[in-house]
Amino acid sequence: MRLKARLLDIQAGGRRTAILDDDTASLLGVHSSDRVKLTYKDAHLIAIVNIAGNFPLKCVGLYEEVSRQLDVKNGEPVEVQLAEIPEGLRYVQAKIAGRRLREDEVRTIVKDVVGRHLSDVELASFVTALHIHGIGMDEIEALSKAMVETGSTLSLNKNPILDKHSVGGIPGDKTSILLVPIIAAADLVIPKTSSRAITSAAGTADRVETLCPVNLTVEEIKEVVDKTNGCLVWGGALDLAPADDLFIQVEYPLAIDPLLLPSIMSKKKAIGATHVVIDMPTGRGSKIKTIGEAHALAYDFIDLGKRLGIDVQCAVTFGEQPLGYAIGPALEAREGLLATMGNGPADLREKATDIAGILLEMAGFKNGKQRAEDILKSGKAERKLREIIEAQGGNAKIRPEDIKLGHKRAEITTEVSGRVLWINNKRITQVAREAGAPKEKGAGVVLQVKLGQQIERGESLLEIYAERSTKLASAIELAESLKPIGLSKRPEETMLIDRIPPRIAHRKAFLLER
Amino acid sequence: MRLKARLLDIQAGGRRTAILDDDTASLLGVHSSDRVKLTYKDAHLIAIVNIAGNFPLKCVGLYEEVSRQLDVKNGEPVEVQLAEIPEGLRYVQAKIAGRRLREDEVRTIVKDVVGRHLSDVELASFVTALHIHGIGMDEIEALSKAMVETGSTLSLNKNPILDKHSVGGIPGDKTSILLVPIIAAADLVIPKTSSRAITSAAGTADRVETLCPVNLTVEEIKEVVDKTNGCLVWGGALDLAPADDLFIQVEYPLAIDPLLLPSIMSKKKAIGATHVVIDMPTGRGSKIKTIGEAHALAYDFIDLGKRLGIDVQCAVTFGEQPLGYAIGPALEAREGLLATMGNGPADLREKATDIAGILLEMAGFKNGKQRAEDILKSGKAERKLREIIEAQGGNAKIRPEDIKLGHKRAEITTEVSGRVLWINNKRITQVAREAGAPKEKGAGVVLQVKLGQQIERGESLLEIYAERSTKLASAIELAESLKPIGLSKRPEETMLIDRIPPRIAHRKAFLLER
Repeated sequence: MRLKARLLDIQAGGRRTAILDDDTASLLGVHSSDRVKLTYKDAHLIAIVNIAGNFPLKCVGLYEEVSRQLDVKNGEPVEVQLAEIPEGLRYVQAKIAGRRLREDEVRTIVKDVVGRHLSDVELASFVTALHIHGIGMDEIEALSKAMVETGSTLSLNKNPILDKHSVGGIPGDKTSILLVPIIAAADLVIPKTSSRAITSAAGTADRVETLCPVNLTVEEIKEVVDKTNGCLVWGGALDLAPADDLFIQVEYPLAIDPLLLPSIMSKKKAIGATHVVIDMPTGRGSKIKTIGEAHALAYDFIDLGKRLGIDVQCAVTFGEQPLGYAIGPALEAREGLLATMGNGPADLREKATDIAGILLEMAGFKNGKQRAEDILKSGKAERKLREIIEAQGGNAKIRPEDIKLGHKRAEITTEVSGRVLWINNKRITQVAREAGAPKEKGAGVVLQVKLGQQIERGESLLEIYAERSTKLASAIELAESLKPIGLSKRPEETMLIDRIPPRIAHRKAFLLER
Repeated sequence: MRLKARLLDIQAGGRRTAILDDDTASLLGVHSSDRVKLTYKDAHLIAIVNIAGNFPLKCVGLYEEVSRQLDVKNGEPVEVQLAEIPEGLRYVQAKIAGRRLREDEVRTIVKDVVGRHLSDVELASFVTALHIHGIGMDEIEALSKAMVETGSTLSLNKNPILDKHSVGGIPGDKTSILLVPIIAAADLVIPKTSSRAITSAAGTADRVETLCPVNLTVEEIKEVVDKTNGCLVWGGALDLAPADDLFIQVEYPLAIDPLLLPSIMSKKKAIGATHVVIDMPTGRGSKIKTIGEAHALAYDFIDLGKRLGIDVQCAVTFGEQPLGYAIGPALEAREGLLATMGNGPADLREKATDIAGILLEMAGFKNGKQRAEDILKSGKAERKLREIIEAQGGNAKIRPEDIKLGHKRAEITTEVSGRVLWINNKRITQVAREAGAPKEKGAGVVLQVKLGQQIERGESLLEIYAERSTKLASAIELAESLKPIGLSKRPEETMLIDRIPPRIAHRKAFLLER
């Protein structure tokens, strides 16, 4: 049926959506969420139908994603037909029914996801089914491979190519800012791509962006890596494993994460990694709660690595408090830069050299940890970080005090003396976000204490940084109500951990950072 | 944050959606599919956020559903805040995790569904979790009650109030056109509400609409029932159990139907039914495949009925071929009218008097089946049907030949002689829909044979009716490729039932009719 294009000049969040009125939809035999094939001149695509009661007759409403791809102008005629259901939907339905999927079926689903042939409803049902039924390792392998095949790849023609990834879960984890230059300074290649924060206060891309540009093209990344052996860039615009980004969109509101393994490993494969360390912050308040859980997941990562031709080792790290003291993009970048200069917090230096050490040993060096420490202490890591900053278009001479922090500041002090018994990762993140992080890069939290430390009444527990006074005020209020840090002279004085129902409603704090 | 309203003048299929640009969303701390609270003067509501890259800064885009409810004009300032996650989402997540839900939790979910606080992604995940984990009878009861509470009800102040419902599955099921007047002629109240076709060739509302208006208000229904004891109206606009309509929207593309029981029974409860017969067409090619399945489902219906204070009996009926000969709104209405006049197909008269007989016995009559047959034969059912037609605003004197059928007609003949071994319900429906049903009311199929009947080479298998010659042509083509009727002199001559992969791709034929 030939319908007049009516351009909406709005994006639909990447979705391919076409709008029809009731009558036209009925004539086409199309229901809401059915698919239509749109043809204009030589271009055609599949869109998902939304039915709008008041839409003009004989018109098809096109969001920008569709009209741009068809290259059609307002009022021009578009051929609209009911489309066959995509093959991938059948396999989605098979998964809902609990069936293990074959490799070709998984590939078909992933292709239909990337081609935008599946609706959010269908994607949501798929990830829910994966979450409930579980995914077998053959399916995980097939998903990972299909996610690589349907995206871009980085071809560096180097070997080995090292990489590191944290499954996430603790605030303030700026390990990569130290680790990448340590590895690169050891003459090993490490093209690190990172994400931005989704639910956290800062992703590595957010942190590094306060030091230098991170939004590089594949070609620019190659140049930076050729020059310096490493990079610290944002992976989001590189189109590595684009299916994963679409899965994350529906996983986020559901707070489920069945695709953790293929999501992480497909991106490692896409950049050509040969040796990868997976960092698993573990413990109370982290994503992985117990050592047992960490072990189970670690063996899955190692198995998947073998199937993808990647040598994987896992580091189970202490995750019961933030790493270092700073939480928030600029604050963390400053702390990371200081640490390369020899002045950072001990836990950050320790963790970075631990993981770098494992990577160095995987690449054939002996005494990896010692070597990593030497590189850090010698100043080679700092020089390498400055090389990378410069190669990415930043100022190589940047000093810690050049990094712009929020000017609105406040201290939260303790009303009792005692020893720090716990620091709640999620609540610290909430306070930092309330202060404006990650969007307002100077905003965040600086802890004044860490676990086990003795502190006296009236002393500072944490400092809040914000760029705006309204945000500062609400972050202070939140910090005072959430009490993210627990103190006691002796553990036996604090027996009540929680009460149910809670006295205050907490915001959702699901960790989807990968 | 105060943002300028930008009205989109399009409906979003009932969804409450607000559009923000990236930067404004980040400042609000809002991600795609998060919720915002919109406030304008005294009005406020929760909307789900869609992020559009190219949307103007400091604006909030409002679809018609939102702008109408806020009563806001283009350019006016709307207060936009990040909203707390709705409580119902926690229970959706609990269901995903496999937990049985309590009554209050179910009610919270249903309220959030009707209040449009849950997105399609969240609804899809919920129904998927219900489908996979299963629903306990306590949950089914709670869902049914909550679906009634959150909708309109019909208060007739009569007792008993009878009703009948088919779980669907066979084409041409015009039983209600006979059954409602039989019951009403026995001086019993039967306020029958029906649906329109979703995936079938005609719903009862579509059929009856060719005889008289069906789109009545609650007040009009009361008048019709007061006058005639019965009605045959469309239930869709009455807002009975509106949650169900929203669940169906996401179940449809997934082809799952976990809410069958609460969906049907909540609507019966909402019209005040005290005695209900559930018709379960059973057999190959129907929704329910085996007698065993039918029994299991029947006991669930009966149990749920008890919990809702409704006396339920179930009729397992033969579902391996269409009922009567006619498939398509006008063709079926004509056949139904003819049957009340004494000239309809035997299977239709038989089934209608069977089910009417059960209802009569439930209401205290003896020999229900005999009484139903007497009412039908005596002409009382026809007179009652004409009363109802008139009360609903139609012509009481309508003759079968007054019902407008499609003028484009074709016969499909058989190339071999033989006995009818099978008639494929889904394929018959597909051919009728290809001819234009249910939108083009005169379109459809008239079978020329039924199961077991002997037919000679060159004789007619079925007749296709259409309103347009293009539709007729494609229905003929489909009928010839699908071969919806199987013939053989002896069963042992037709051993090959199917081949996989099939030679032709079939359209989705999931049955969501209730």
